[in-house]
Amino acid sequence: MDIKQAAARAKAASIYLAAAKGDLKNRALADIAGAIKANAARIVEANRKDLAQAEKDNVAKPLLKRLKFDEEKIAEVCRGIQSLIDMPDPVGGTLSATELDTGLELYKVSCPIGVIGVIFESRPDALVQISSLCLKSANAVLLKGGSEAAHTNRILADVIAQASESAGMPEGWLGLLETRADVAQMLDLDAYIDLIVPRGSNEFVRHIMDNTNIPVLGHADGICHVYVDAKADLDMAIRIAVDSKCQYVAVCNAAETLLVHNDIADTFLPAVKQAFDEKNVALVGCERTAEIIDVAPADEQDWKTEYLDAILSIKVVNNLDEAIRHINRYGSRHTDAIVTRDPAAAAAFMDLVDSADVLVNCSTRFSDGFRYGLGAEVGISTNKIHARGPVGLEGLLIYKWRLIGKGHIVADYSGPGAKTFTHKKLDKPYGL
Amino acid sequence: MDIKQAAARAKAASIYLAAAKGDLKNRALADIAGAIKANAARIVEANRKDLAQAEKDNVAKPLLKRLKFDEEKIAEVCRGIQSLIDMPDPVGGTLSATELDTGLELYKVSCPIGVIGVIFESRPDALVQISSLCLKSANAVLLKGGSEAAHTNRILADVIAQASESAGMPEGWLGLLETRADVAQMLDLDAYIDLIVPRGSNEFVRHIMDNTNIPVLGHADGICHVYVDAKADLDMAIRIAVDSKCQYVAVCNAAETLLVHNDIADTFLPAVKQAFDEKNVALVGCERTAEIIDVAPADEQDWKTEYLDAILSIKVVNNLDEAIRHINRYGSRHTDAIVTRDPAAAAAFMDLVDSADVLVNCSTRFSDGFRYGLGAEVGISTNKIHARGPVGLEGLLIYKWRLIGKGHIVADYSGPGAKTFTHKKLDKPYGL
Repeated sequence: MDIKQAAARAKAASIYLAAAKGDLKNRALADIAGAIKANAARIVEANRKDLAQAEKDNVAKPLLKRLKFDEEKIAEVCRGIQSLIDMPDPVGGTLSATELDTGLELYKVSCPIGVIGVIFESRPDALVQISSLCLKSANAVLLKGGSEAAHTNRILADVIAQASESAGMPEGWLGLLETRADVAQMLDLDAYIDLIVPRGSNEFVRHIMDNTNIPVLGHADGICHVYVDAKADLDMAIRIAVDSKCQYVAVCNAAETLLVHNDIADTFLPAVKQAFDEKNVALVGCERTAEIIDVAPADEQDWKTEYLDAILSIKVVNNLDEAIRHINRYGSRHTDAIVTRDPAAAAAFMDLVDSADVLVNCSTRFSDGFRYGLGAEVGISTNKIHARGPVGLEGLLIYKWRLIGKGHIVADYSGPGAKTFTHKKLDKPYGL
Repeated sequence: MDIKQAAARAKAASIYLAAAKGDLKNRALADIAGAIKANAARIVEANRKDLAQAEKDNVAKPLLKRLKFDEEKIAEVCRGIQSLIDMPDPVGGTLSATELDTGLELYKVSCPIGVIGVIFESRPDALVQISSLCLKSANAVLLKGGSEAAHTNRILADVIAQASESAGMPEGWLGLLETRADVAQMLDLDAYIDLIVPRGSNEFVRHIMDNTNIPVLGHADGICHVYVDAKADLDMAIRIAVDSKCQYVAVCNAAETLLVHNDIADTFLPAVKQAFDEKNVALVGCERTAEIIDVAPADEQDWKTEYLDAILSIKVVNNLDEAIRHINRYGSRHTDAIVTRDPAAAAAFMDLVDSADVLVNCSTRFSDGFRYGLGAEVGISTNKIHARGPVGLEGLLIYKWRLIGKGHIVADYSGPGAKTFTHKKLDKPYGL
């Protein structure tokens, strides 16, 4: 079956999936977990093939670790599925209810988006997480995982599709894409696919964003900043700068640039350098920074670079305004933090920095769906519409308007003797 | 100034506009209304030039009427501005508040999207409405009106920009585009423009959607359906069909296709034909329809056509499922209605029709921001993300995450002795 057919099947399935009741979806989720456990031996065997091939291809150790899908991982994804079962149904919630006139009632009701295309990294557990998230939110899904995990992904997709379809989910709601050519084809299928969620390198996400008319939820870069204000607690600033840069360097919410107010630069920079030296972080800095501490010179390219590594660029700024302008110019509208004891500076920073996450006196590493308590994380978005920052299940939802009348027509509300609308807020959920 | 410069100015202005307090924005709105009244004579004079040119160009009567901007229209737009002033500030609302841990508080706070590009029809009042909507929601805006209204638009944009900037709004928050080439250039400026709202013909909106990477909020087609179920009240069905088609034929929420259940077709079709004959609506129908009443033959192209005229296509279907499949295949995900006394049929229709507005026993013409009580209407969206159906001010808003700590770092929440998150819902608005 080609991708267009798979997408058309997913579209058709999405209509019926949208109407699936919460308990039916939960039963399907439970059956998926059961089927994954029942097929554990086959799944682990398939994963061994992927691991053997990856070792033969001299794949790097960290990637091998992510690729591994053993009994422990199986138990973990099944716990994840159980936590989704325990969540209330996100579909069918009444977001607002209004009486337009006697007997004419309008309800804004949450519903799935439709068909989601998800392209994810080489972790087979991601396939299980994403498909169960989509099922819970009643979205059909087209999945493309890393090619290193091809055998594991194939069996997981088969097991999940079979178990859920047996439990009453519509045929074809889950489709697996296997090649890069499949992905290229998917980008053209805006007639069938409503949203693409790409996870992966910034070049890859940028490529997706630039090559499709389908809305994309995600982020390319994560150029995050920590700004240390003139009125910062300098010990706190060191802790936050180090955590933001070093707690995990290879992630999008790690800091890439440290901005330092000139008034405290002479004191702060030597102290923070010592802390970063202990963590083996290479520092590059602007001319003013280089006057105070020993750093390699930074040029404009550094302000635009997501190192994703133990490298930090440092710039001394003359005031809060310069810091804000720098962030809005070079940042990626992801996550930026100020360290200050001055509430006015904190408020201005949070108002004027145009990023999804604006933080005061804490580490950029907090901007994450789990830490925010969103439950399952769909991804992190630097979009300006729909969903921003860490996105939970609600990012896979939209709403439809449901209007229930008793023969009402618009002609009665115009001309002489026109009826008027009541527009009265109702305090009840949608129901016929 | 070229468009790129205007867009860059708007982007810079949008940062400061986003932080403008509600009372300052309201004062600017009041000053705009005052300035429009004070400059009424100049505005009407400019409008006379546009009208004279349009008459010379033999522009159609209805367009001339829309183009006219006189003392009465000035009073009307100023009343519109006053109603915006009376609305609460949509920016800065706390959508959720969560304690992540003691002293670490997360707020999801509404904020403007940034820079909106709006392309609108030849009504100068639209320029005033759109710019005041954008100001209230703290969005910078690039406006392109109909070229027929060039003189009127220019003076209105000048008056609005001057009055609002004098009242403290940031310079360049409002930019006026004047040519089609300007629009073409705007579509490439995704570095500066966050959302495009096109209003106009379906070909035009389709063109915009197909030629930009900037998110577009709007609708190309409005192919809306009325489905008359086997268990419909047939008198009600006639009233709703006639209102949906005839109350105003040239709008997107007018019905284009009538679907009729075969069980009642013999009775219903002759009766509804009589009603449409009285309204001079031309009918085209499927073969089964033509067996019952005298209609021109419809082919597949009719099911895909938005007539925007006194023409209606009719199709007899064998059951509810066929009606739903027809609508999901040929409709434009805009507005579709069922007429039925059967709650199960109504529920299935509303669940399975994948449209922004799904209606039971009322006219498709109700799907409109004013009738829905949304206040100002930004447009009608057939998107599947961000905003759907009639869109009020909230369509111009997004949110940012504001996290306030006291030196919190992520390292404390991992490894041995890790602190745990409390994720406690807070019942208080954002504030430092």
